[in-house]
Amino acid sequence: MTDHNERVVLAATPEGEPQPGHFCLEQTPLPEAALGEVLCRTRYLSLDPYMRSQISGRHISGGVSPGEVMRGETVAEVVADTSGHFSAGQLVRCMGGWQRYSRHAPADVSPLPEGLSAPSLALSLLGMTGLTAWAGMVWQAQVEAGDTVLIPAVTGGVGSAAAQFCRERGARVIGIAGGADKCHWAESELRVEACIDRHQEDIGDRLKTLAPQGIDVYFDLIGGPLLQLACEHLANYGRVVLCGLMAEYNSATRQAGPPPGLLIMKRAVVSGLVVYDYEARREEFVQACLPLLDAGRISQREDVSEGLATAPEAFCRLMSGDNFGKVIIKV
Amino acid sequence: MTDHNERVVLAATPEGEPQPGHFCLEQTPLPEAALGEVLCRTRYLSLDPYMRSQISGRHISGGVSPGEVMRGETVAEVVADTSGHFSAGQLVRCMGGWQRYSRHAPADVSPLPEGLSAPSLALSLLGMTGLTAWAGMVWQAQVEAGDTVLIPAVTGGVGSAAAQFCRERGARVIGIAGGADKCHWAESELRVEACIDRHQEDIGDRLKTLAPQGIDVYFDLIGGPLLQLACEHLANYGRVVLCGLMAEYNSATRQAGPPPGLLIMKRAVVSGLVVYDYEARREEFVQACLPLLDAGRISQREDVSEGLATAPEAFCRLMSGDNFGKVIIKV
Repeated sequence: MTDHNERVVLAATPEGEPQPGHFCLEQTPLPEAALGEVLCRTRYLSLDPYMRSQISGRHISGGVSPGEVMRGETVAEVVADTSGHFSAGQLVRCMGGWQRYSRHAPADVSPLPEGLSAPSLALSLLGMTGLTAWAGMVWQAQVEAGDTVLIPAVTGGVGSAAAQFCRERGARVIGIAGGADKCHWAESELRVEACIDRHQEDIGDRLKTLAPQGIDVYFDLIGGPLLQLACEHLANYGRVVLCGLMAEYNSATRQAGPPPGLLIMKRAVVSGLVVYDYEARREEFVQACLPLLDAGRISQREDVSEGLATAPEAFCRLMSGDNFGKVIIKV
Repeated sequence: MTDHNERVVLAATPEGEPQPGHFCLEQTPLPEAALGEVLCRTRYLSLDPYMRSQISGRHISGGVSPGEVMRGETVAEVVADTSGHFSAGQLVRCMGGWQRYSRHAPADVSPLPEGLSAPSLALSLLGMTGLTAWAGMVWQAQVEAGDTVLIPAVTGGVGSAAAQFCRERGARVIGIAGGADKCHWAESELRVEACIDRHQEDIGDRLKTLAPQGIDVYFDLIGGPLLQLACEHLANYGRVVLCGLMAEYNSATRQAGPPPGLLIMKRAVVSGLVVYDYEARREEFVQACLPLLDAGRISQREDVSEGLATAPEAFCRLMSGDNFGKVIIKV
């Protein structure tokens, strides 16, 4: 155990694509937990696209300004708990941020689900990532057998979870990913029916062949022109869950959405998803998801880097779409 | 009874705002009903904004090309019925179009609801206009007591029906109309809580005052910048029903919709409405609506012109927003 904290702060607000130089690794004194607080030592840190929005000050959860520690969900080990809720050494989930040590009110700390094969699953399939996918596909879109579902960024954290949840519900899943390797993996490991290579293929042409009757559900993690294209290929009564804005996180302006005339013609139902709204249903999700995990029916590919010092570079890779799997920093 | 038919055909496809010269009144021979058909004589013709889309060839129901008769819903009198379903002189509802006589398969002809105080109500509150409003506000948006509902074009056919249905369900209704007369009428006769004058007032400023907690439901009959503005003023979990495109019917291009980032932040639910989908539930609607009408709780202001020759001018007034009430041609 070191006697000081290590943390990544935002050094400067990026314009456009973030670079590692926009972040700075700092050494600070070890935080001391106040009476009733829990002191945690980070073991795994989840990196997610929404953080790009936080550092622009545009995220619903608030912003991160230069000089402030980057925020994020973590799996951590309890170092000390003066609240009496946790035992030293226990693994928990908390919003520890991009740092080695963090202090929390006990209400903000949750035990990990029992019997996890890997603690980092609490950040991916069983974490906010999985909850986002479940809320979008199961609770909002109500995907069921017979639906044709289109999922972009299908090898990423939310995309791969969504693809597997939909497949398990009996839906036909069409993925989109960047590059032949990712597409091959999506077809063989995620077992999607087909994966469109956005670097090599015309997505509209492929959709005409793969979904001539149209798409029933589109999980929009991207925004931008792909959202428009997906709406053009919607079946009547198609559902679109708006969740992410990968196409515009690096841009200062908000892009317009699909034309209302198109949505009328399709009788589309478009709904916005904010995962925080589903926090109260997390246990319900975990209980539904754990048996799939235990039975080996779903799994998580992780894109793991070691050490907090690697977090800025891993985050920049994530924001340029170069990650392959759920991005996790092992601390 | 004349011995010839009179009808309005499209003379030329308008670009931009339609003018009366885009239409032509013709005399043609009286149609003869084939065996099993119903011959109808039009009494009332409904004019509606979707017709602008038909003459551009962009409407979901198909297009109207130059030389073709304008289409439209009518209340008509049965002249002859070789099918045996209707009696001569009976009033029915059918898609008679902009003409004095029309022939129909019996399945396309419906008796009017019993005990209507005015037959034209079958084209307004109890017709496709009312069904559109009911489907949008009751079935899709599920407006209920406590909702704050924003309705543009509130003195028009669909708008005034929607406003009254929402009010009867206990919702707070804020209307938008063009001009002080219409706004005054909306407040005194439709009994909306407030009506914003789009010619004189800043809609955004007024919404800040009238709905500081945001709008729960927006009935989009307009598209364009007003849709964007309404979304900015949505409450979280607000519902938007996309139904009409008044702002772009006269334009050749489709306008983009509100930014997905905004819809995510609001957790908005946006759904497209095509009234034809609800044809099978028309009777359910009529049975729910008739008691309100009989009790004098809802009413319809009609903007009536006499004679088919007036239809082109009345349609052009409708498309420039100068109508005041549901536009009906008395034939």
